[in-house]
Amino acid sequence: MMSDFPFTTLAAGLPRTVPFVGPETQERQSGRPFRARLGANESAFGPSPRAIEAMAQAARDVWKYGDPENFDLKSALTNHHGVARDEIMVGEGIDGLLGYLCRLLVEPGVTVITSDGAYPTFNYHVVGFGGNLVKVPYREDAEDPAALAQAAQDTGARLVYLANPDNPMGTFHSAERVAALANALPERCLLVLDEAYVEFLPELPLPMLPLLPNVIRFRTFSKAYGMAGARVGYAIGPAPLISAFDSIRNHFGMSRVSIAGALAALDDQAWLGDVVSKVASARDRIGQIAVKNGLAPLPSAANFVALDCGGDGQRAKALLQALIERGVFVRMPFVPPQDRCIRISAGTQADLDVLDEALPDALTVI
Amino acid sequence: MMSDFPFTTLAAGLPRTVPFVGPETQERQSGRPFRARLGANESAFGPSPRAIEAMAQAARDVWKYGDPENFDLKSALTNHHGVARDEIMVGEGIDGLLGYLCRLLVEPGVTVITSDGAYPTFNYHVVGFGGNLVKVPYREDAEDPAALAQAAQDTGARLVYLANPDNPMGTFHSAERVAALANALPERCLLVLDEAYVEFLPELPLPMLPLLPNVIRFRTFSKAYGMAGARVGYAIGPAPLISAFDSIRNHFGMSRVSIAGALAALDDQAWLGDVVSKVASARDRIGQIAVKNGLAPLPSAANFVALDCGGDGQRAKALLQALIERGVFVRMPFVPPQDRCIRISAGTQADLDVLDEALPDALTVI
Repeated sequence: MMSDFPFTTLAAGLPRTVPFVGPETQERQSGRPFRARLGANESAFGPSPRAIEAMAQAARDVWKYGDPENFDLKSALTNHHGVARDEIMVGEGIDGLLGYLCRLLVEPGVTVITSDGAYPTFNYHVVGFGGNLVKVPYREDAEDPAALAQAAQDTGARLVYLANPDNPMGTFHSAERVAALANALPERCLLVLDEAYVEFLPELPLPMLPLLPNVIRFRTFSKAYGMAGARVGYAIGPAPLISAFDSIRNHFGMSRVSIAGALAALDDQAWLGDVVSKVASARDRIGQIAVKNGLAPLPSAANFVALDCGGDGQRAKALLQALIERGVFVRMPFVPPQDRCIRISAGTQADLDVLDEALPDALTVI
Repeated sequence: MMSDFPFTTLAAGLPRTVPFVGPETQERQSGRPFRARLGANESAFGPSPRAIEAMAQAARDVWKYGDPENFDLKSALTNHHGVARDEIMVGEGIDGLLGYLCRLLVEPGVTVITSDGAYPTFNYHVVGFGGNLVKVPYREDAEDPAALAQAAQDTGARLVYLANPDNPMGTFHSAERVAALANALPERCLLVLDEAYVEFLPELPLPMLPLLPNVIRFRTFSKAYGMAGARVGYAIGPAPLISAFDSIRNHFGMSRVSIAGALAALDDQAWLGDVVSKVASARDRIGQIAVKNGLAPLPSAANFVALDCGGDGQRAKALLQALIERGVFVRMPFVPPQDRCIRISAGTQADLDVLDEALPDALTVI
């Protein structure tokens, strides 16, 4: 009999908190399904019908393991982005890839810089590998490249995280500012550039080529491509860094059904363009619904809108709770002063009709 | 500019070798598809048609993230095995779960015991987290519980790996021997019991209840359930160990399409029984094909048969290569004297017809 388990020192000290509670957990707690699912920046417009069909077809071959090299998807991405095969790594969503990146680069004693209120799952992986997380404040509701660079210089950080566009605020930085951030980092410090929402920008904030030597970029099929449930992401970066993933990753980790879907989705850029256009309309309508209810929408370059609720975090949290009780799944920023906002994902017209109906009522009870 | 990357000491020292090369890589190299895919212990009989249909349906909802708690599948597994919800962890195949387990328990200075020639992906994860891997020989083509226990005692090991049934040899141990191994381990040493092939046994070698306090068991939908490409595995063990996975795992790592398929597959036990029966027939036919070609089939409790080629590793390797050149994807054990064998997965009648035709010809050239 063992009274406990021989965890590593690091594992024994980790918190059991999870980065996000899923909407299904809330549905089980309330006993009711949500009427509108507008909290996880999923794409209610769905993936290309061709991707759905490709997945249905691939399900028949699910008895085969996927190709551990993900050769076909890498080839397609190579063509799509004009980068080399050895500069691309496919993985189990950006979350999975961020975990691998932290495993490669983070250990006790390593400092990592991020913004206070930025992506919690990145922080989860940094802490999970024993890193020392240093957070700098947002500036005007945007991640602050100058402050991130300064913090990296001050601490000798090994990694700096920037989401561009930012989640949860929807702000973004120009190519020049991102490149300047990369150039302002100390020697041997890597910029972790999370571009999960990049397809929603009118034009790319940073050209794909030339690859910057100290930048690794993360893309996903979960957002604009509408395949969050498939878990397909990819990283683009310098070959010596990309190849290191092969020394630690789960080589047979990708679903072959998901890979088939991603290939078909990538091939349907017309659908992608249509989704981006629908998301822009949905952002506008979220803004209109907000304004007529006395809330202030922030400009957004992503598939969600942060709404300033005109008070502090308590007020926004009360509104969030009131919306959830009315069947509208939404989330909100974690940290002041951004937590004066709630965050609404772009949804279908039917979804936003539910929001339109629920929001005035929710506001009466806070 | 950075001349290299700030890898951790551990990551910088890892080999870039991968546990397995996939058949697709070999197909790309040869420029021809395999005629029979009998090398990865996949189930050519496929999953339940209900699982295929469930995946096709779930593909329509792939825009939603999966439930990070995997509540529904855990519920179904709880019912199926009669264990408690907090004793089950769902993950990205056994490979993914073994990676998490090693992350929780292995660090430099930790010794882990396995058999020389047993599952390379487990070794990959142990080495990947800095563990010291000690290998004991097979005994009569089976993993040797007494030697494993002795090595654990001698070294103060933290983990001992046993696959039951064994891969690549197909041998297995009784419930009594497995329980005796668990009981013979030192304090705070965990038995990692890989039961990927357990459904092929006529009866379970170890009852699910009572859970042994120092054993964690791994099961999968990749083998008998025919869903290797979906990446769904699960672990069953003591709740305090199982819950620790939540502090490190990729919470949104599971494909919701795969989960839907696994739920439907689990619900179709009649299909599973039929597959097990077909696998038994396929094993018999592989044995017959072997015997008429002068090779000796080993008894197997799994969905593959090891064929003794009647020589050393060089002879078996030559035969393996000759079969591959004839379009038959097979694999073989890595370590003497087990590498006197090649390993043939159970396949359909058409697959085994290809083997039947190719084997005599392959034997003429070695």
